[in-house]
Amino acid sequence: MPREPKLQTIFEIISVGYELLDGRVVNTNASWLAGQISSLGGRVSRITVVGDDVGEISSAIREAMRRGADWIITSGGLGPTYDDMTLQGVAKAAGRRLALNRRALEMIKKRYEELAREGVVESAELTPPRMKMAMLPRGAKPLENEVGTAPGVLLRAGRSWIVCLPGVPSELQDIFLKRVKPILEKKIKKIVSADRWIHVKGVPESVLAPRIDELRTRAPGLYIKSHPDKREGTSFIRVYLRIIGRRKQACERVLDEIEEKLIKAVKELGGEILKPEGEAG
Amino acid sequence: MPREPKLQTIFEIISVGYELLDGRVVNTNASWLAGQISSLGGRVSRITVVGDDVGEISSAIREAMRRGADWIITSGGLGPTYDDMTLQGVAKAAGRRLALNRRALEMIKKRYEELAREGVVESAELTPPRMKMAMLPRGAKPLENEVGTAPGVLLRAGRSWIVCLPGVPSELQDIFLKRVKPILEKKIKKIVSADRWIHVKGVPESVLAPRIDELRTRAPGLYIKSHPDKREGTSFIRVYLRIIGRRKQACERVLDEIEEKLIKAVKELGGEILKPEGEAG
Repeated sequence: MPREPKLQTIFEIISVGYELLDGRVVNTNASWLAGQISSLGGRVSRITVVGDDVGEISSAIREAMRRGADWIITSGGLGPTYDDMTLQGVAKAAGRRLALNRRALEMIKKRYEELAREGVVESAELTPPRMKMAMLPRGAKPLENEVGTAPGVLLRAGRSWIVCLPGVPSELQDIFLKRVKPILEKKIKKIVSADRWIHVKGVPESVLAPRIDELRTRAPGLYIKSHPDKREGTSFIRVYLRIIGRRKQACERVLDEIEEKLIKAVKELGGEILKPEGEAG
Repeated sequence: MPREPKLQTIFEIISVGYELLDGRVVNTNASWLAGQISSLGGRVSRITVVGDDVGEISSAIREAMRRGADWIITSGGLGPTYDDMTLQGVAKAAGRRLALNRRALEMIKKRYEELAREGVVESAELTPPRMKMAMLPRGAKPLENEVGTAPGVLLRAGRSWIVCLPGVPSELQDIFLKRVKPILEKKIKKIVSADRWIHVKGVPESVLAPRIDELRTRAPGLYIKSHPDKREGTSFIRVYLRIIGRRKQACERVLDEIEEKLIKAVKELGGEILKPEGEAG
């Protein structure tokens, strides 16, 4: 995928937990989130893994904000124990205080009452560790967790949206699909794409490569890749052009220009254009 | 694991590839490397995933150097195609030029001759894409790849060592185990650890927690965690103390001091110490 910050909504994923840094756990949460975001049309520009350390967490979040991420999604560190410190890190990065959030507390109370009824926990008492999960950065909105107990968190900080999800995959996925995805579907910039293949004969790839490199810089959101190939004993190069943008017509127009320039370069180099298989033109 | 930069050799892992950012591929290379490094006694302080983009790669490496990483291990982006650009990123971060490395070229030549003999490739010819894999940052040392074709790279940059490994897991693992691990075994700081359990009765965890928080800051490399538990109907708290350091005796001495302070705090709070099961003292 080409790097084009202005066309797509940019996401960064920040995974929190020492268990990810010592090899105990593979970061499947990050790849699951990345897949979801991509299929919604967003672009993940970076994934960062840090330990359960307030300083490390807040640095990672501040760096992502500084890089201009539209959305920062964290995973892990929302639980009741002292080493669950993601919200402390978020609060520090966003310059907010942690305060008891009434809606979060209601969600937690309701969950423990359910779990006590089911016999999963002994009592629904709101102990200090359980209340800790309702300590949210000021201005944050809790996201209901129907699988576990720690609510997710949504917060606007500077020009970024921050979403905090628990590290347990079933909880992360449930909150993302039910609470976050519907918001993203509204907020992610809609992009379209156009692509085409051009087949080149009679020019070695190493000779064509610098001309392709030149074209690559000609338009934002443009992606060009060449693949050496053979057809009926003849070597040729399949050149793939792809562009993303806001309007289909504008994308096609840019590809027309790039194609024209490429054909001109191929002719200058003594080569010719093959008619791609299965294409009309 | 506690954060203690001075006691342990610090590693950062930087994984390169758009396929890791759109959910197509789970980053098992990073967790494999993290597991290896941990079992050698090193500490991975951060994992970063960036796309195939020279600017992104060089920024990530420069940031890791600035944070004082002793070792920076990259994975991916060493292959023959134009979008394999890790070494360009490393060269930029380290302020070096890329230049043809004769030893790397010999390794690549040998591998293609083997692959041509085996019929895996048509010819052993050193085409420009193949020669590209021998373009290393000046001063770098190639690390032989017996599985694929792109050599790994070892480079000293500022106060960090940079190791670049291919993204194909079998190649990454082979080069790491045969070429990198033997070096790390010599260079990683040797650390030892000491730990013990203390069982506390008659103090609620929420009351003990602030006293434990105080103790936590008392010694570098100290890790304390409390676990509420029950034995024969009686609630108690299992407190785990662990410390890492250079000498076993010094570690034990610090734990003696911490234990003494903890016992004093428990008594002040009206609690008592239970004899842990299966322990002598």
